[in-house]
Amino acid sequence: MTANLDAIASLCKRRGFIYHSSEIYGGMPGFWDYGPLGCELKRNVKDAWWQFMVRGRDDVAGLDATIIMHPRIWKASGHLDTFADPMTMCKDCKKLMRADQLESILAEQKKPPKPRNPPGTGMCPYCGGELTEPKPFNLMFKTVVGPVDDPSNVAYLRPETAQAIFAQFLNVHDTSRKQVPFGIAQEGKSFRNEVTPRNFIFRSREFEQMELEFFIRPDEAVEILFGRVVHLSDGPDVHGDPQPEWGWDVWHMYWVEQRKKFLREIGLPEEHFIEYWQKPDELAHYARACVDIEYDFPFGRQELEGIAARSDFDLSQHQKFSGKSMAVFDEQLKLAARKMDDAAKEAFAAKTAAEWEKRGKDAGEARAFCAELFEGRFVPHVIEPSAGVDRLMLALLCQAYDEETLDDGKGGKDVRTVLRFSPKVAPVKVAVFPLVKNDPAVMSIARDIFGKLRRKVNAFWDVSGQIGRRYRRQDEAGTPWCVTVDKQTPEDGTFTVRERDSMAQERMTYEAFLAKMYAALEF
Amino acid sequence: MTANLDAIASLCKRRGFIYHSSEIYGGMPGFWDYGPLGCELKRNVKDAWWQFMVRGRDDVAGLDATIIMHPRIWKASGHLDTFADPMTMCKDCKKLMRADQLESILAEQKKPPKPRNPPGTGMCPYCGGELTEPKPFNLMFKTVVGPVDDPSNVAYLRPETAQAIFAQFLNVHDTSRKQVPFGIAQEGKSFRNEVTPRNFIFRSREFEQMELEFFIRPDEAVEILFGRVVHLSDGPDVHGDPQPEWGWDVWHMYWVEQRKKFLREIGLPEEHFIEYWQKPDELAHYARACVDIEYDFPFGRQELEGIAARSDFDLSQHQKFSGKSMAVFDEQLKLAARKMDDAAKEAFAAKTAAEWEKRGKDAGEARAFCAELFEGRFVPHVIEPSAGVDRLMLALLCQAYDEETLDDGKGGKDVRTVLRFSPKVAPVKVAVFPLVKNDPAVMSIARDIFGKLRRKVNAFWDVSGQIGRRYRRQDEAGTPWCVTVDKQTPEDGTFTVRERDSMAQERMTYEAFLAKMYAALEF
Repeated sequence: MTANLDAIASLCKRRGFIYHSSEIYGGMPGFWDYGPLGCELKRNVKDAWWQFMVRGRDDVAGLDATIIMHPRIWKASGHLDTFADPMTMCKDCKKLMRADQLESILAEQKKPPKPRNPPGTGMCPYCGGELTEPKPFNLMFKTVVGPVDDPSNVAYLRPETAQAIFAQFLNVHDTSRKQVPFGIAQEGKSFRNEVTPRNFIFRSREFEQMELEFFIRPDEAVEILFGRVVHLSDGPDVHGDPQPEWGWDVWHMYWVEQRKKFLREIGLPEEHFIEYWQKPDELAHYARACVDIEYDFPFGRQELEGIAARSDFDLSQHQKFSGKSMAVFDEQLKLAARKMDDAAKEAFAAKTAAEWEKRGKDAGEARAFCAELFEGRFVPHVIEPSAGVDRLMLALLCQAYDEETLDDGKGGKDVRTVLRFSPKVAPVKVAVFPLVKNDPAVMSIARDIFGKLRRKVNAFWDVSGQIGRRYRRQDEAGTPWCVTVDKQTPEDGTFTVRERDSMAQERMTYEAFLAKMYAALEF
Repeated sequence: MTANLDAIASLCKRRGFIYHSSEIYGGMPGFWDYGPLGCELKRNVKDAWWQFMVRGRDDVAGLDATIIMHPRIWKASGHLDTFADPMTMCKDCKKLMRADQLESILAEQKKPPKPRNPPGTGMCPYCGGELTEPKPFNLMFKTVVGPVDDPSNVAYLRPETAQAIFAQFLNVHDTSRKQVPFGIAQEGKSFRNEVTPRNFIFRSREFEQMELEFFIRPDEAVEILFGRVVHLSDGPDVHGDPQPEWGWDVWHMYWVEQRKKFLREIGLPEEHFIEYWQKPDELAHYARACVDIEYDFPFGRQELEGIAARSDFDLSQHQKFSGKSMAVFDEQLKLAARKMDDAAKEAFAAKTAAEWEKRGKDAGEARAFCAELFEGRFVPHVIEPSAGVDRLMLALLCQAYDEETLDDGKGGKDVRTVLRFSPKVAPVKVAVFPLVKNDPAVMSIARDIFGKLRRKVNAFWDVSGQIGRRYRRQDEAGTPWCVTVDKQTPEDGTFTVRERDSMAQERMTYEAFLAKMYAALEF
C-alpha cells in the first residue's frame, strides 16, 4: 500500500514519535521534536549506521566536530557564494516563496487563483498577483561569535557535516594510523534556513546527517602502484572486500552497493528504492558521478541519500583557502615510482596530461601532479555517501506503516494499525506483560524478566488493560515481540512470545527468547 | 597524582581525542572537535548515561528536541532577560573581558601590569588601563529564522537542553503512558556565547548536555494520598527503589545518590568528587536545594554536574507564558481527596496556607492550589540532574591519565603513558594483533577473531611494529585488553590477553575472553 502521510503523522503525534517543536507556543515551521519512541528510533538508525560504517570496519574513523566552524570553511566549500535558493515575493499579498516551487505550491491550492497579470509574467500561486524578480537567498543560518557584534565575527551554523571532515582531514589522518584508502565518518545536526520547509520531517530547517568521506588514491597513483587500474568494465566484485587496484568508478559502485545493503538490513526492501544515476549535465562541475537513492514517499519520489564521486575538489579547495597542503605521503607509491626510469616517467606524464586535457583540465597542472606522484605525494580523491537521518526515519515509518483488516471473531471487521519495523531499528524491542496484576508470583517473575531484559535492550512494561489491547498498543509502536507472563511461568520458566507481524504465539524459555532476539538484532 | 592539563591536551591531540575546531583556518576559540578516539569516548559516555537514566528504568522517557526553538521559551525561562555575564572593556587596550574574572585573568599574567589609574577604580589585568562600567552581555547565540531579517524572526540557539523538556512536557506525558512521578531525559548540544571560553573543553561555546527532569507530586499531594510525607529526617533508604510516600527532599537525595552511582560506575572513584550543597543564599529564588558534584581538575575544583530541586517553577512559567495548563490529572489523588470531608479539607487548606505564608508565598494561591489538588490536579514539581558531557569527559581523561615509571629491563627507567579508563567508557575495548605478519595461518585466524569482535564492540587492528610498541600505543588510547594471536592459536584456539593496568598476560579461549569482557562492560 502507499502509506498516507496524514495517517502516519497522526500516529507519530499520538504515540510519541514526532511532535511540532515548541508546540505550546504555536510551533516553529520546519522544526520537529522526537518524542520517547521517535528518539529511540533515531538512536537506533544512527547506531546502526555507525556500526555498519565505522565500528564494523577497520578502514573508517569517526569524527564529531562542532556545528559552528570558521566562516572561511564555507568560502572554500562554495556555500557562502552559491548555497542559495531563488526567492520571489508577491507584490500583492507579500508572501515569500521559492521561485522554483511555484508550480508545486499552485498544485497544493484548493482553489487556484485567477491570474491578475499579463500572461507570461510570474503569477503568485496564492493570490494570482505579480511576483518580484527572483533573488538568491543564502540558506545558511548566521550568528555572531564573541561579544562584539561585528561583520568579522559572523559565523554560520553548518549546512552539512561533510566540510568538517575535510577541514579535519589532516588531523585525523595524522593521528588515526589509517592510510589512504580510508574514510572519516560523522553524524550530527545540520541547519538550512529553507524558505518553505515541507513534507513533515522530510525537509526541515534543523535536521541530522550521517556522512562518510572515503578517501582514495587518484587512478594515476593506482596505475603506478599496480601497473593497471581496475574499472567497472573489468567486472570487479563490488560486493566483496575492497581491492587496492580499484579505480574511482569501482570504489563509487562499491559504496552504492554498501549503502543499498545497509538500507536492506534496516528494513527497506530493495524493490522499494530507486537507484538514480545523475546525468552528466546534472552533475556538479567537480563531480564525476553521483547516484541518488530515492524512495517513493506519499508526496512523491524523493532522494533518500546520495553517493557522489567528488574527485579531489573538496580537499583542494581547503588547500587553496587555508594555505595548508592536503597531500598525503604514500611510501608504497614512492617505492613503485622509483622503479620507473625517466623515459617511463615522461611517458606516464605525457599520457596523463593528454587525458587531463581531454577532460578540459590544464596539461601543466597534470605534469605537476605527476611530479608529486613520483615523490609519493597526492591529494586524495573522495567518494561521499551522504544520508539524512530524518528522511530515512520517514521512509522507515512509511515502509513500516500498515493497516490490516482482521476478523473481529464476531463476524465483523477490525482494523489493526501496525508498524512493521525491522527489529534492528524498532524503538522498543520487547514488551513484558504480566497476564494478571493480582498474582504476586506472576508479578514478581514478570518484573524479574523485565529487569533482565532492559539491561540488554530497550524494553517496555505494561500492566494495564486486556492483553489484546496491550498487544495492539505495541503493534502501533512497532515492537517486534511481546512477552506474556502467566501462572505457568513460575512453574516451568516458560512464557508466551507473541510476534508482531504474524501475531503467532509461542511458549519458550528466557534463554530461547534471548537467542531468537539477538539473532534478529545482529548485523 | 594531579594530572597535568598540558600533558593531557597534548596526548588528546596526538592520539586523536580532541582537536581545535577549524584548526587549519587558525581555530575558533571555545570550539573543539572530537577525533576518532574522542568521539568513541563521547558516544560511550552518552550511551552509558542513556542506559542508566532512560532504558534501564521504566519511569523515564526520552526526548530529542531541536536546538532552535520558539523565542518565547527563553522569555518564560528567564534566559532572555537574565542569562548574561557582566562585561567590561579596557579603555586603553580595548580588550573585552568578564568583570567577574579580573582577578583570575590577572593571576594568569606572566608580568602583572602596573595600575595606571587612581586606586579603587577597576584595572585592566592585561595593561593596567581603566575599565568601562560592567554591562550585562546575554550569552545566547542569536540567529534569524526564515527569509525575512526582522526582529520578529529572531531566534536563539538553546543555552540548555532542559527547557525543551518543559515545553514538551504535556506531549510526552500524554503520549508515553507514564504518570507522575516520572522523568523526561534529553542529550544534545547547547550553545553559550562565553566571553572568555577557557580550560580546554571544560567551558566552551558549543557543548553537549545530558539532562533529566524528573517530575514528582507536590508534597501536599503525597500527604493527601498517603496521610504522611516521608522526609530525609525519617531516614528513608535513598539507595533502594523509589517509594510513592517520598517528599521532594527524599527524591532530591535519591537522584544525588543515583548520579554518584553513575559516576562511580563509569570510573570516577567517589573519593575524587566533592558533594557541595549550595547554601540558602546561593540558591536561585525558586530552588529548594541544589547539590553540585565537583571534581578537582588541574585548574581547580569545578562543577561536574548539578542536581537541583526546582519546585514547580519551570512548568508554571511555561503555563503563564503559553497560556496552556501544565497541570496533570491524578486519579488516585482525586479518589483519596474524595474520602476527606469538608472539615478535613478546610483544615488541610488552612495548614497549607500557613506553611506557604511562612515561605513568603501567598495564602490565597495556596488555597487555590488545594482546591485543585482535591480535584486531583496539580502542576508537577521537578528534580533536575544536569550533567555536561564534555566536562565529564575531561574529568574521565584527568582521572585516567597516568605516567608510570617502569624498569626498562636494562637497568634504566622507562615511562609508560596510560589512560586507565573504565572498560565501560574506553573508546576501544580490544585490540587484536597477529604476532607475526608473514604466517598466513596466524593472520587468517587473527582477522577472523577481529571480525567477530568488531561486530560486538569497537575493536582495533594493528600489525605494525614490535608487539611491545603495539601494547604501548593501546595504553595511550586506554584500551583495556590486547589480544595477541600466535602460532599456538591455530592449534588450540587460545590467544594471549594482555591487561592494560596490570600488564599481566593470560592465555584463554575466545569464549572465555568474551565472558570476561562482557562482565566488565555490563551496567
